[in-house]
Amino acid sequence: MLSAEAKIRVRYAETDRMGYVYYGNYATYYEVARGELVRKIGVTYVQLEADGYFLPIAELKIKYIKPALYDELLTVKVTLKKFESAKLEFEYQVFNEQGELINTGYTLQVFISGKTRRPTRPPKYFIEALEQAIKRDNN
Amino acid sequence: MLSAEAKIRVRYAETDRMGYVYYGNYATYYEVARGELVRKIGVTYVQLEADGYFLPIAELKIKYIKPALYDELLTVKVTLKKFESAKLEFEYQVFNEQGELINTGYTLQVFISGKTRRPTRPPKYFIEALEQAIKRDNN
Amino acid sequence: MLSAEAKIRVRYAETDRMGYVYYGNYATYYEVARGELVRKIGVTYVQLEADGYFLPIAELKIKYIKPALYDELLTVKVTLKKFESAKLEFEYQVFNEQGELINTGYTLQVFISGKTRRPTRPPKYFIEALEQAIKRDNN
Amino acid sequence: MLSAEAKIRVRYAETDRMGYVYYGNYATYYEVARGELVRKIGVTYVQLEADGYFLPIAELKIKYIKPALYDELLTVKVTLKKFESAKLEFEYQVFNEQGELINTGYTLQVFISGKTRRPTRPPKYFIEALEQAIKRDNN
Repeated sequence: MLSAEAKIRVRYAETDRMGYVYYGNYATYYEVARGELVRKIGVTYVQLEADGYFLPIAELKIKYIKPALYDELLTVKVTLKKFESAKLEFEYQVFNEQGELINTGYTLQVFISGKTRRPTRPPKYFIEALEQAIKRDNN
Repeated sequence: MLSAEAKIRVRYAETDRMGYVYYGNYATYYEVARGELVRKIGVTYVQLEADGYFLPIAELKIKYIKPALYDELLTVKVTLKKFESAKLEFEYQVFNEQGELINTGYTLQVFISGKTRRPTRPPKYFIEALEQAIKRDNN
Repeated sequence: MLSAEAKIRVRYAETDRMGYVYYGNYATYYEVARGELVRKIGVTYVQLEADGYFLPIAELKIKYIKPALYDELLTVKVTLKKFESAKLEFEYQVFNEQGELINTGYTLQVFISGKTRRPTRPPKYFIEALEQAIKRDNN
Repeated sequence: MLSAEAKIRVRYAETDRMGYVYYGNYATYYEVARGELVRKIGVTYVQLEADGYFLPIAELKIKYIKPALYDELLTVKVTLKKFESAKLEFEYQVFNEQGELINTGYTLQVFISGKTRRPTRPPKYFIEALEQAIKRDNN
């Protein structure tokens, strides 16, 4: 549907004593890429949250193929695979500088209302901006 | 097969601007519980690594049911579900102070050799200690 | 004035490729100890924040003497050194399992109002609870 | 002596429930800027570590002036203030998108030998590269 990517240089803080990026930190890398995709839509999390919408994660899956090392410049590709009422499904691929696929991931997010903390439809402006972005991306 | 649990108090550092524990931090909570299970076996990661064995994560899955909040005392239960040649499969359940199940997880780890960085069988002393621990746990 | 301590076991996530606890993570360890001190006062951050008070850090100093390693059980001692109008000054000492002092720290926190985001006096109940806690501690 | 800067976009993972970047995370931001400065010298940590040199932090100071918020694009300026035998002193300034100075910092690092884990002089190639970089920067 809609794709984006982020370049992320591995920080020392993100490595562990094995010398690898700690396995939980890819969740943050995915977040950075997702932020770029949302930016491409022309909406920001900041705006959504100011309007009372939050997007907590309902599901996360990661398959680790190769480790990432300190100072490597990673490419994190994210694709919006599905968008249905309150739900957003994303898929991720992380590549190292040699172009090797080092892990793949999946997240499911649900729009919730900041007030009720329950699932809710996203605001109209988000849906319209998303549809526009998908059109732009397909041309 | 073998279970353990860890009590973890949510740190301010682990929350995000939604007021929830950031979704990637559960990977760390799982690690803490896994460490307790390994301790129960009577072996430590430190010892395994000193002997040239590493246990990187090959797969992670998390389903988020409810958020965890600052200062809550969580209980993280971990169970070793499968142990086969180089592979270890763990399942996790996280409960809040009200005893509510707030998320469930799964990890797959693979023994690798520090030298070759390739999968390898765990050392005999680990296998024996694990078998003993399982016996103790079943009595 | 008032002291507390926290036992913290070093997590794998907190180590870096040098095999040491990453230098920024001590800020989190200090926070955990500070939380115990606040608990001793009988007030929680959660309550203060619910009442519209926040305590952001205005200053941090750390001197690193020895590294901390994975799985070590650290003792983090915190002492409230000064409490004056909106300001709280804390000092920290971190010890490893051998009882060696491995680092010392200092933080300055300022009470701010959640509404104005400007410095403010703490609520009366905090001041009274603090005075009671100091008396208890000195007996 | 020698300066560099890094652009860092605040990640959701780095915020806390106050909505601010967690105070310990600036240590990581400083690290990123320091990495850019080292890159400017033409040497990398990776190379230094491969040659048996490590650069743990001996001291950290941060003064927090204003908070940083989610998705802000920060500029982190780092300056090497002093370089003497085994010691490196850096100063930091963090600016938000409005160009406001939001915090200032200081770190002291000491070259240690990976073998002895004791202070040691940096390798000649580092000293020479540093002197060249300072000359280039002053022209």
